[in-house]
Parts: sequence; C-alpha cells; structure tokens
Amino acid sequence: MQRVIGFISDFGLDDTWVGVCHAVIVRACPQARVVDLGHNVPPFDIRKGAATAAAAIHQLPDAILLVVVDPGVGPSRRDLCVVAQSGAVLVGPDNGVLLPAAQRAGGVTAAYAIDPTKIDFRAPLATFHARDVLAPAAAAIACGVQPSALGEQVDPDELVQGPFGASRLEGDELIGEVLESDRFGSLRFTITAEDLAHLSYKGRRLEMALGHVTVIAPVGESFSSVEEGAVVVLVDSSGWMTLAVNRGSALERYGVSIGATVRVRVVD
Amino acid sequence: MQRVIGFISDFGLDDTWVGVCHAVIVRACPQARVVDLGHNVPPFDIRKGAATAAAAIHQLPDAILLVVVDPGVGPSRRDLCVVAQSGAVLVGPDNGVLLPAAQRAGGVTAAYAIDPTKIDFRAPLATFHARDVLAPAAAAIACGVQPSALGEQVDPDELVQGPFGASRLEGDELIGEVLESDRFGSLRFTITAEDLAHLSYKGRRLEMALGHVTVIAPVGESFSSVEEGAVVVLVDSSGWMTLAVNRGSALERYGVSIGATVRVRVVD
Amino acid sequence: MQRVIGFISDFGLDDTWVGVCHAVIVRACPQARVVDLGHNVPPFDIRKGAATAAAAIHQLPDAILLVVVDPGVGPSRRDLCVVAQSGAVLVGPDNGVLLPAAQRAGGVTAAYAIDPTKIDFRAPLATFHARDVLAPAAAAIACGVQPSALGEQVDPDELVQGPFGASRLEGDELIGEVLESDRFGSLRFTITAEDLAHLSYKGRRLEMALGHVTVIAPVGESFSSVEEGAVVVLVDSSGWMTLAVNRGSALERYGVSIGATVRVRVVD
Repeated sequence: MQRVIGFISDFGLDDTWVGVCHAVIVRACPQARVVDLGHNVPPFDIRKGAATAAAAIHQLPDAILLVVVDPGVGPSRRDLCVVAQSGAVLVGPDNGVLLPAAQRAGGVTAAYAIDPTKIDFRAPLATFHARDVLAPAAAAIACGVQPSALGEQVDPDELVQGPFGASRLEGDELIGEVLESDRFGSLRFTITAEDLAHLSYKGRRLEMALGHVTVIAPVGESFSSVEEGAVVVLVDSSGWMTLAVNRGSALERYGVSIGATVRVRVVD
Repeated sequence: MQRVIGFISDFGLDDTWVGVCHAVIVRACPQARVVDLGHNVPPFDIRKGAATAAAAIHQLPDAILLVVVDPGVGPSRRDLCVVAQSGAVLVGPDNGVLLPAAQRAGGVTAAYAIDPTKIDFRAPLATFHARDVLAPAAAAIACGVQPSALGEQVDPDELVQGPFGASRLEGDELIGEVLESDRFGSLRFTITAEDLAHLSYKGRRLEMALGHVTVIAPVGESFSSVEEGAVVVLVDSSGWMTLAVNRGSALERYGVSIGATVRVRVVD
Repeated sequence: MQRVIGFISDFGLDDTWVGVCHAVIVRACPQARVVDLGHNVPPFDIRKGAATAAAAIHQLPDAILLVVVDPGVGPSRRDLCVVAQSGAVLVGPDNGVLLPAAQRAGGVTAAYAIDPTKIDFRAPLATFHARDVLAPAAAAIACGVQPSALGEQVDPDELVQGPFGASRLEGDELIGEVLESDRFGSLRFTITAEDLAHLSYKGRRLEMALGHVTVIAPVGESFSSVEEGAVVVLVDSSGWMTLAVNRGSALERYGVSIGATVRVRVVD
C-alpha cells in the first residue's frame, strides 16, 4: 500500500510554500503520495489546525500527517515526530497542534524531537522549518526511516498541551465544546461516537445546551433523515457529533461561538 | 496512457474532504492520477457542478469524472456510474449533475446504480458517499473494473434530468442560456461550436439578446482579436460560445444573470 | 531524481483550467511531477506572477517552471522556453513574467520561441495556450526533450522586459521596491541576501525609508527573534529581504504600496 502523507497548514494557496513542500517530498521520497487536507487554516490558528488534523486521522488512521501551524517558528521551538497507537505518525511543531489527533489515534506511543543533523536535511532555515525540517522528516518516514532515528525521545507528558481535549460525562450529560463549523454550516462538537455511546442515543432526541440557546434535535443517519430545513444531530464523516440543518446552515440558525461549551443529554 | 480521474465537488478546500477522497483513490488504485477540476462549486449548486463537468469533458473526453454536488446525500438517493459515447465514465449522484457532461460526450451509452456491496467498499457512511462509494467506484474504473460490475443497469430515461439542456435553433436564431461567468468575467452560454455552425458565423458579427440588453459583437479567434476594452464573441477553451471584453469583464459590463435566456443571430 | 514542474497561473481554482493542464502533462509525461506554486495570482497581474516565479526559483533552482499570466494571449504573442544558468527551464508567454526568475537563476542562457508544430502538440487553440502549447512544452522538457528542439532561438535582449528589476547600491544605500506582502502580512522587497551583503548587515539595525514612513528594525534570523508585536527584518524563505512583525502584520502597521521605492541603510 502506498504511504500517504496528509498535509495541513496555515500557508494558504497564494504563495509558493505548499508547492515547495510538495517538491521537497517528491524528491526525498518519490513513492510517497501527498494529499492536501486543508491549507486555509487561519494564520497561527493552532485550534483549527488541530481540529483539521483530528478529523483527518479519524479517516486515515495509518497515515503520516504533516501539520504546520507554527506561530513560534524559530530555534527555540521543538519539531516533533509523534507515533500514535493506531500506527499514525504525526510531524509538526511542539505547540499542541498534533495532540488532539494523537489522542483520537489511541494516544501517544512515542515522541521524538527532530534533530535536523540526523538525516540528510538541508541546513534548517530559521523561518521555514516546514520545508527544511518537517517535510523532509515526513518524507523520511514515508520511505521507511524509523521515527526513533530522527532525534531524541521526548516524554509525552512534557509536550505542549493541545488546544482542546476530550469531552467528559457528568451524570447523564456529556460536556464538550463547539469544535468548528464546516462549509455547509454544520456545527461539530468535541464529542465522538464513542462518547455518545454512553447516552444510548440512537433513534432518540438530544438536547444541546449552547450558552443562551437550547436545541432539541432528533438523531439521524444523514442530513436528509429530516425534512428540508429541519435540524438533525448525527455523527458525521469525521466522527464528531454534528448539528446540521438539512440543506441549510446550523451556524446561521444558532450563531454559536467556536470553543463554546455544549451540554448534551437524551430527552426522549 | 495513464487513466485520469477528474474530480469536481462543492467541498471547498478548507476541510479534509477533498484530500481524503484523494487518499482513498491512491490506496485503491495507485496508478490512477487524480486532477482537481474545481472544488469551489457553491454548496449544493447542481447547475454549477454540471457546468464544470461539461467544460471538463469537452477537454478530457476519455477521462473518468468524479462529480460530487449532492444536497440529497443519503440512502434514498442513487449513486451512478454513467458511460458516455466518447468513452468517458461519469461517477456521481443521480441528481442531474452528470447529464450535461454525458450529453456533451455523445450521450449516455449505459448507466448503472452503484451497489456498495459489489466490490471492496467500506461500509458506506450515510453522510459521505464521496469517500465511501463514489471515490472507490472511480478508482475501480481507473484500475480496469467494468462499469457493469458496479451495480444494476438503469434505464437512462429514468435518470434525474440535468439542470440545463442543449440550445435550440428557431429559424435563424439560436436560443440558449447564460451558463456561467469565469474568473476573467467572460460569459459562457449553453451554445457549442457545433450549434453555432448552423449560423455560418465565422468572420461575422453576432447579436445576442440578453433580457434588457442587446449586445452586438464581432466573432474573433481570441480575446486579443479586438482592441483592449472592446467586446468579442468566440468559442472558448471549454467549447462554449463566450462573450468577452479584451482585458476587461463582460459580466461587469452587461450584468446578466446566470440562467437567463439568450437569443443569438448573425447581423452582418 | 524526479523532474518537478512548478506551475503558477492567474487561473484561480474555480474553473477546470489548472486541472486540465495537469491532465495534459500527466498524459504527455507520466513521470513528471507537477506541484502547484500559486494559481491565485490576480487576473492579468504580470508583476505578481513574476514575483511568485522568482520566489519559487530561489527554492527550486533546477525545476521546470510553467508560468501562465497572459493578458495578451493570441497568435501575435510569443510562447517562450527560457533556459537559466542554474539549470532551471522557464516556460510561459513573452510578456516579462519569466524574466525576474531567470535573473535570480543566474540569468538567461538561451531562449526559444516555442513552435507548436515542432512536437506533438494539439492544434493550438487561440484562447488557451497554457493547455495547448505551454503545458505540453513543459511536459516535453520533463521527459528529456531539449529546449532547442522546441523552436527557433531568440535573442535574450529582445524579450519583453520583466515588471521589476534588481536593486541597486548608491553609496551606502540599497534602493529597491516593495515586491509583495504575504499571507501573514510580511513585506518582501526586491532585495536579496546577496544585495544585503554589501551592507554588512548581520546583527545590525536597518533603516528602511518607505515613502512617508521610515522604519528602523533589528536584523533577525526568524520572526521570533524579537518580542511578540515587535518589528524585525530578515531574509525569508524565498530569499528576499522581508519586514515582519512577530505574530502581527507589517502590511497593516505600515500600509505601504506594492511597487513603492524602498531605501535601506545600516543605522548602527
């Protein structure tokens, strides 16, 4: 099977950055296949980068993910190679952007601080570790280099924490956060199908308390499980609990903020 | 020759969807080559998706096209594999988005309702047929699976109609629609070079009645066939009759609506 | 080593143009690898296209660059294949868009006017030389065709001039232009590390006179060489002198115009 490198960044598509990283990988490991999983993460938005990586790893649990959202780029910030339980390998800065994905992939098995001198990197340029350290590291992994060959092992407990964590169960309520909205206006929460399983939610209706708004919606299998314009809650393709309006926008209807707390319980 | 899969969707580039479909295809058929033909189709805009697919098939008449604009995704909506006269194979939902491309490729030769159990699909997830049914189907075709192996044959006359049809000739007038405007402000119509041939238009001037506006423009070979700022009508790279302003925007100048009727005749 | 084709255009990503050019290259030279280096160049903006190409060639000095920003497309405008000292091969229209990249790659070694009849091109369509002439030419080079086989040699002095030139030294001042701003609000100037070397600038502070604004900033190695919110001048990943605000936007702070003159000297 081809080794896939999923690439996520806040580089946008207006500059040469993304394509140059592709070229670096093509040359270092021609058999790797790079797929772009989102480069429009807002500049420096570690939370959105982490959310995108976590959505990706759910769908590609054995991929290599190269995640570059890096406001602190420079010699004092570590570059990481993190191995997860699922077999995924995550490459990116030590600023929390990798951790939610690692947790969704079963947790961190081992972490390494990438040492540019260990393999055939270019001299790392201070402003563009993505090109000079991280993309070459991802390419090396894709071509069979062991993560442990990239640098010294790091205690996973010493990594910078992720920007959001797992949901928690309090009595009969699940408590999480609004993670993000998608292009179609659906709202994703930091609540997984496994979390929801605690509520025996299938075929029921859920109440979601979202700050000033309380939404009650039936659990469906797809957006069209309800009438056009009606609200539905489902587990979407990235494995998150999602609030959607069939052919409409839940974001427009409820106007909640990213990061807001949500409390979920079964109503009937 | 490499088998090319042209991929069109309304997924945008901010989420993981497009890249995950690339990864699915890479793994299922490593020798396939996926090219992105436009993922910024507005959400649920079947007309724009169909227009993009029809432009693509004119230029890549033997490609596999994967077209995902799918407001009704769910178990009750069929997934199709359509074979066209040109050899093109079109994969997408049964909501009309494939039909204008099929018609431009010589018409539908055969159509099949994709049955996810027929080949090695994942269990289809209700919300993301693109990843779980349609991309695997396109990959299978690219690797030599016959369309007839994907599911039961469907009567082409029972497919959901396309959002726009061919132009028609009434006396000395061609009657069509405004199909779309492009990035440079040129206006494309649902009128092909073959349609225009009925008017013996080369080297002439055409009158285009567009609602309240009537435009008279010379037929040219390229945008620079006329002075800067002047209007010209030509057959563009996607094979549609196009109204353009050299180094300017016909859309801004004439302000017509997508879908508006156009009546075309030769004036001299 | 894989031959990489870097592709830059003003086509945007909403139409089929970019993907169709990818498909043309895949079919003509399957072993070529195309990387996208920016397709959101504003329509007809030769300056921005040239700046993007010049940034790319600094990072990929032996690549093939396909650069299509082409307001004058038509039979009277020449298509070029330019060979640079570094080994780079540049393919695009003769309107200046290739020249700054060629100069950064050591200057033009040879230039050829591409003759579509020389190799197995399709009949060139008047409106889309990118697909019908330039992409096939880039693919031919990637598969080993010599540039001299593509058409007649052209005197480099007869090529249309680039939209910006090199900086110049006047006494102890370097005089250049504001080249562009990037996604993070950093300002790049038409001044290279080699130009700056004339000022023995490392570890010093520089004064930049920018129209009404004069900025004094320390030279750093990376954005985080200074406090958050502080200004720093550095040589960025594309090799240009760059004025940046750590985790902020120099463009917003100083509001200068692209193309404005900048005068740089060491202050202490």
